[in-house]
Amino acid sequence: MSHDTTSPVGAHRVLEPQGVLPQAAWRLDADPRIGPDEVRIRVTRLNLDAASYQQLHDKHFGDGARVRAEVAGIIASRGKMHNPVTGSGGMLIGVVEEVGPDSPLGLTVGDRVATLVSLTLTPLRIEDELGRWDGMSEQVPCDGTAILFRRSIVATLPDDMSQELAMSVNDVCGAPALTARVVADYRRRGIAPTVAVLGGAGKSGSLSLAAARMEGAGRTVGVVPVEREADALRSAGIADVVALADARDPIGVSDAVVEALGAPADITIVCVTVPGCEHGAVLCTAEGGTVIFFSMATSFTAAALGAEGLAADVTMLIGNGYTRGHAAYALDLLRQDPAIRALFEARVAGEDR
Amino acid sequence: MSHDTTSPVGAHRVLEPQGVLPQAAWRLDADPRIGPDEVRIRVTRLNLDAASYQQLHDKHFGDGARVRAEVAGIIASRGKMHNPVTGSGGMLIGVVEEVGPDSPLGLTVGDRVATLVSLTLTPLRIEDELGRWDGMSEQVPCDGTAILFRRSIVATLPDDMSQELAMSVNDVCGAPALTARVVADYRRRGIAPTVAVLGGAGKSGSLSLAAARMEGAGRTVGVVPVEREADALRSAGIADVVALADARDPIGVSDAVVEALGAPADITIVCVTVPGCEHGAVLCTAEGGTVIFFSMATSFTAAALGAEGLAADVTMLIGNGYTRGHAAYALDLLRQDPAIRALFEARVAGEDR
Repeated sequence: MSHDTTSPVGAHRVLEPQGVLPQAAWRLDADPRIGPDEVRIRVTRLNLDAASYQQLHDKHFGDGARVRAEVAGIIASRGKMHNPVTGSGGMLIGVVEEVGPDSPLGLTVGDRVATLVSLTLTPLRIEDELGRWDGMSEQVPCDGTAILFRRSIVATLPDDMSQELAMSVNDVCGAPALTARVVADYRRRGIAPTVAVLGGAGKSGSLSLAAARMEGAGRTVGVVPVEREADALRSAGIADVVALADARDPIGVSDAVVEALGAPADITIVCVTVPGCEHGAVLCTAEGGTVIFFSMATSFTAAALGAEGLAADVTMLIGNGYTRGHAAYALDLLRQDPAIRALFEARVAGEDR
Repeated sequence: MSHDTTSPVGAHRVLEPQGVLPQAAWRLDADPRIGPDEVRIRVTRLNLDAASYQQLHDKHFGDGARVRAEVAGIIASRGKMHNPVTGSGGMLIGVVEEVGPDSPLGLTVGDRVATLVSLTLTPLRIEDELGRWDGMSEQVPCDGTAILFRRSIVATLPDDMSQELAMSVNDVCGAPALTARVVADYRRRGIAPTVAVLGGAGKSGSLSLAAARMEGAGRTVGVVPVEREADALRSAGIADVVALADARDPIGVSDAVVEALGAPADITIVCVTVPGCEHGAVLCTAEGGTVIFFSMATSFTAAALGAEGLAADVTMLIGNGYTRGHAAYALDLLRQDPAIRALFEARVAGEDR
């Protein structure tokens, strides 16, 4: 394979089907030899997307060895970690190993970096068969290579936190950044919006709650399905109210939000990693309000037809994983809010146990 | 079955699974006996969602009898016309047959109406086995009953156009209404946004082009896949430029839009009924721009991860089928713009041939 002419978005790495971009491809060429504007990373850790890990964990009834074998198999056959069921990937960290002379990413050999584009479009080759991973958490220690394109997004890891912590934050940094932007839009119109976060105790959910408060939201509620998560969220103190409800139960979740806020939410943020939360999210949002779907388990048709079926005039946003400056914003939230940092540190410690 | 206590959104009509709303249900109770706040419609015509009809047509290689048998089978087994593959439905027209004493919809027996909520959540029973339909178009003449809930949305049919024409417009009226709102938001910020409509010659696409122009958009381009559609769109004169490109080819469609507008579009509107157009839509949109996905073939994860993978900071909207006043707005577009009315009349005539 010749990399003499390369596409800035990686189209030259697509093996099949021809003519699509890397994320839509079934199989990528993960050849570690780089083109003039590419970068090769020596990968030390993958962080699987939560919905993807959950699906694999459930499919194999929590059998770590089988989860590991399936992840290794997906990467070997697709040239990338792209879960064919959930359609989602995750992130990676590693060390810059080689930089093509025409790469505009500003990287130097030896830099410790985290990728901020999805694993679903990142050429990846594993060299240790994931032998150091027990298959029991979404954090996957490994040895292998990954390729960055001209237009990839990458963050060098900060000095003031562990790489696991920074990566855990980077993985979901699109959520707080977009939340901040939407809340700020309401603020510019003179409204301090109420905010409901479904799945408020998770990574993207807790960062979204912290971002909403930072940008001057009104009353906020974090909705969680179990008492254990409610306790964690209450201790962190990042939501004004913590409510217990199953986000898949539209009536239940909407009753819980209305009770917590006194009315439906101006902004509802969906960070739950299970399918079937679209109708609940729409029902608990005020007429003229905004729903942001960050969960990769979201169904486009369920959201579009659900809002129509409920005669709900709400703006529905697809949570874009990329917003300019999103990684720096999320890391700053942790620096400025010890409670959210403590939540993440506990989570990372739990994953490593 | 007793309808003494009914849910405003129809939860009492759900047979399985329990606890979900009608759109998410596998099967509804289509019993024609109504509750006190329900309305029964004598159905005369269904208008299948374009993506749904296309899937059925392709699956059966254009064999109308098999398409008809499958549609009749779906309705009989699910109690609604809810295509299990595409997840989409369509609309219906008919005559009000009975109005419950507590219905707030303001209907009278004998009113000619079109439903503006999806068939995916409307209890439906067919009594003529679709015997008058040849299975060759999305317009399905039929005899049967449908149920409206307290919170359903329904439009009485206007006097100044045929019911087929009004229904054809009502089916997609969410698209021009949301397009108008987004363009108006740009205008309030002093920007006359450029607009690209992928699938610009279709129903939702042509109405979106007309709405964009009506609200003061800048240059507009309608992108279509074949010369025949390009001719139709050029004749109608509702787009400043007509471009030929396959919306599934990201590079091709983005090159076509940039050539037509001189730069990527401020607003890109996806009205193509085939899967795989998410990346092209993102690529042809300017940094900071907006993508509105109206196609029911849109994949949530392909859009979310695609934008991230392309490092594209764009706002992505799920096309909500309901916006306050959407039906009246779309019908007014036809009244004010003879070209768009002519496009729709030709389409309706073609479907009836």
